[in-house]
Amino acid sequence: MSLMERLSSRKTKINREIERSLAVGENETLREAMKHYPLAGGKRLRPLLSYLVAEAISGDGDVTIPFGVGLELLHNFTLVHDDIMDRSDFRRGITAVHKKFDVPTAIIAGDALFALAFEQLCNLQVDDALLRIIVNDTALAVREVAEGQQMDMEFEKRTDITVKDYLTMVDKKTARLYFTAARTGAIVARAPMDVIRAMGDMGYLMGTGFQIWDDVLDLEGEEDKTGKPFGGDIKEGKRTLMVVYAFSHLKGDERKTFQSILGNQKASKKSIQDAVELLHSCGAVSYAKNFALEYIREAKEKTSGLRSSEAKDLLLDLIDYSVRRDN
Amino acid sequence: MSLMERLSSRKTKINREIERSLAVGENETLREAMKHYPLAGGKRLRPLLSYLVAEAISGDGDVTIPFGVGLELLHNFTLVHDDIMDRSDFRRGITAVHKKFDVPTAIIAGDALFALAFEQLCNLQVDDALLRIIVNDTALAVREVAEGQQMDMEFEKRTDITVKDYLTMVDKKTARLYFTAARTGAIVARAPMDVIRAMGDMGYLMGTGFQIWDDVLDLEGEEDKTGKPFGGDIKEGKRTLMVVYAFSHLKGDERKTFQSILGNQKASKKSIQDAVELLHSCGAVSYAKNFALEYIREAKEKTSGLRSSEAKDLLLDLIDYSVRRDN
Repeated sequence: MSLMERLSSRKTKINREIERSLAVGENETLREAMKHYPLAGGKRLRPLLSYLVAEAISGDGDVTIPFGVGLELLHNFTLVHDDIMDRSDFRRGITAVHKKFDVPTAIIAGDALFALAFEQLCNLQVDDALLRIIVNDTALAVREVAEGQQMDMEFEKRTDITVKDYLTMVDKKTARLYFTAARTGAIVARAPMDVIRAMGDMGYLMGTGFQIWDDVLDLEGEEDKTGKPFGGDIKEGKRTLMVVYAFSHLKGDERKTFQSILGNQKASKKSIQDAVELLHSCGAVSYAKNFALEYIREAKEKTSGLRSSEAKDLLLDLIDYSVRRDN
Repeated sequence: MSLMERLSSRKTKINREIERSLAVGENETLREAMKHYPLAGGKRLRPLLSYLVAEAISGDGDVTIPFGVGLELLHNFTLVHDDIMDRSDFRRGITAVHKKFDVPTAIIAGDALFALAFEQLCNLQVDDALLRIIVNDTALAVREVAEGQQMDMEFEKRTDITVKDYLTMVDKKTARLYFTAARTGAIVARAPMDVIRAMGDMGYLMGTGFQIWDDVLDLEGEEDKTGKPFGGDIKEGKRTLMVVYAFSHLKGDERKTFQSILGNQKASKKSIQDAVELLHSCGAVSYAKNFALEYIREAKEKTSGLRSSEAKDLLLDLIDYSVRRDN
């Protein structure tokens, strides 16, 4: 049985609550725009991460669901706004919110998903004192995501990004929500402080591994599986770990060629393929893959303090899934 | 002494905390974009409303400050996103965030202000159980604001808006934050339930009066005071209470003329003046003014349960200020 099949009963509970949360509001257009991404499917990795961490610690994952729903809504709000900023007209094989509706509606729908996420957090059946911490952590996480997005944009104009710069950006843009998912799962399960810390570290490592793999999939994935055009990141000029590596390893004509294609919105499919070939030949792709695999290995190590259980097995497989998936 | 002078010590405290709250983050561009509106001044009506309600009830307004800061950041986040949607390049006489920076940065800065607001709420020195209620109320309020903005946009395409439709939209778009400001001030001051309700009603009435007056100022205000171009709402085709009234009172050629100017981005200054003249001659402007004045009168009545105090006097004057200001 595949991991997603083994997780299906948990995922069904999460999906049911996501759907229920979105049955709100009096304006039909806004409601449809809000639902467009969250109800188009998705792996639900962040809610599942939170769920499995809590279940592995206390046996009860259900208690995390309102938080997981909140995280998923937040993740989707960032996608809606991201796609406006990146002028991406498709996502997961469907039309982007700002294309199906319009840019103002997409801005508002993102904002409304953001607000709805915090309403969901307030449904958490935890001590009020814990809720204060969770609200604060989550709000901070979203602000860090915003900062990571800003850095990501600014990096696109630069050729001097270091691996450390890249990791700072990914820490904020992507890994922070995984960190918060895993850490909050542990908080809600009333884990001792060392376990809370270990789960936070695990989420950070997993989220970073996930993002690096995502960037690899942009070059290696099949369009009909990823739902994104092949090499879109190259056209956009995204500073992925592979690009950072290439900038410090490509020399002479190869570097010039690479630089002329990177960020060129009008680059032909052939040019994109040339750029991808350069990323392969200079070792950037295998460097990034190994980097991600090492982070995922370390992430799994962080769970060593959890006792054996079905939930722990699923958690380990979920961490692995970050670098095993093809979409 | 003017009201704002009498409120200056309270406003100074609020401003200091707004400034302090914005000294965060590692990305300079994002930080500057976040600061651009909140530190360009502003009347701070929402934080002051919350402050004075609490002070009038318990004698302590300071306890509301983190909440007031949160509200002000939320208000500013909606302005940043609004200006992108409306393509307004100026605000309060300064360049709009999306013009001074760019659209992606403005979207992100708005999101980050939103997140920061919820971090500020978590600083409230109130029982954790109350904080849960306040976070939930505030998140719901922001979602209602989003819905109000969506309705406002959709109304621009219609000529059949009723006064009731208009009030529903303004309730959400504007009055909801005033409602939440006043109500939360009462909650934080540990007022009994009837007072909490009365203060919420008062905020709703004041916020509605404020918005109607704002629309009047768009036609009557001096550009150098309002910081907005004369008749901007006419060009945009906003369905203000005056426009709603005009649609049901203008007939024949006058209606045709009015409709041809409303929402015409290329309308000349002369045409705008003609449209404003029609709003005056059909009685729409005085209708809207009287409507606002009546709401403000009712808002003041809602404070009848509060005992006499300096704070109550200031609160009454603040309510009045909604329809006395010239910017």
